[in-house]
Amino acid sequence: MSVPLTFAIPKGRILDEALPLMARAGVVPEAEFHDKGSRALSFACVDSDMRLIRVRAFDVATFVAHGAAQIGIVGSDVVEEFDYADLYAPVDLAIGHCRLSVAEPAGGAQDTGSESHLRVASKYPSLTRRHFEAQGIQAEVVKLNGAMELAPGLGLAGRIVDLVSTGRTLKDNGLIETSEILQVSARLIVNRAALKTDARLAGLIAAFRAAVTS
Amino acid sequence: MSVPLTFAIPKGRILDEALPLMARAGVVPEAEFHDKGSRALSFACVDSDMRLIRVRAFDVATFVAHGAAQIGIVGSDVVEEFDYADLYAPVDLAIGHCRLSVAEPAGGAQDTGSESHLRVASKYPSLTRRHFEAQGIQAEVVKLNGAMELAPGLGLAGRIVDLVSTGRTLKDNGLIETSEILQVSARLIVNRAALKTDARLAGLIAAFRAAVTS
Repeated sequence: MSVPLTFAIPKGRILDEALPLMARAGVVPEAEFHDKGSRALSFACVDSDMRLIRVRAFDVATFVAHGAAQIGIVGSDVVEEFDYADLYAPVDLAIGHCRLSVAEPAGGAQDTGSESHLRVASKYPSLTRRHFEAQGIQAEVVKLNGAMELAPGLGLAGRIVDLVSTGRTLKDNGLIETSEILQVSARLIVNRAALKTDARLAGLIAAFRAAVTS
Repeated sequence: MSVPLTFAIPKGRILDEALPLMARAGVVPEAEFHDKGSRALSFACVDSDMRLIRVRAFDVATFVAHGAAQIGIVGSDVVEEFDYADLYAPVDLAIGHCRLSVAEPAGGAQDTGSESHLRVASKYPSLTRRHFEAQGIQAEVVKLNGAMELAPGLGLAGRIVDLVSTGRTLKDNGLIETSEILQVSARLIVNRAALKTDARLAGLIAAFRAAVTS
């Protein structure tokens, strides 16, 4: 008679690798989930009253941190960027591997600022500021939602901080990685308050732990 | 001998309507622009040394406001949300019509807050806060990047502020519009500093004005 759990999963990159792992943990979305023409935002699960919601990666963290979803899957880049106190990330799912890196033009960054003040384009303002602060550098972050690689060539920022997988996108845009901020992989995340009050969450964490090692 | 202009256009909704208008104003992207498999972020134009960049709507405003692109097309929702001093929006392109509205569950908003303090999910934190402030209400905005319609049902927020076109997505999610914040249409935007120093921009503004009325 309990309220169904809501499980938030991200669109895009991680999802294809996450689905087999979810299946091994007993979380299988209804057929409509795979219908590319569907406008639905929320899906039933097979053999369970759990609901799946498919949202953007940053929004997975927001839904789970506020307890609107109790559990979810998201990259460690997003977990670290938000640094929400109510988010607990107990399982490294060992999928969706990439890295968050600083990159600049192959010929060197064209800085408008000084040595101690740089302008950086990124989708990750918090991680970017923290990375440069640790080196005693004040970074002014221009927040972009995509296409960071365009920024140096157009003079928007001397450097970018972005996810790098094969490095091909950087190369195509004449950029080289200069330092790595974070090794990224997908994590199972749960809402801390929900974990204390709902025993189903501990069961799901155990099922995902087993699914990763199987 | 002058540096090529960069023209920023948004992915998605507005683009299909914008292309014929751009063509009437003499801005025609190279064939690769229409290749859906292309990974390119920047495109040449036919009969012009202008470059086109195709980025997310919010990023169009960021590139133009910083002068990294000198001209662009974006919805008035984005222009109003950012309220950048360096953005000038001289031409209403009369395409991409929709509205920014407040919506709540058909049965009424389930508010966790009080009458004078509401929680609202939106991609538009600034416009949302300003709308409610004008009514003497303090709105706590939960910033989402998409799927706002899920928020009331999952208890993330009592209300949402989102773009509404046909109203079908709201209806599918059991929501009704309660007030309209802004009538939205696409605008030609230019960087103010660039407009003062580059005569080509006045020519483009005139060409788009003529294209709209033709």
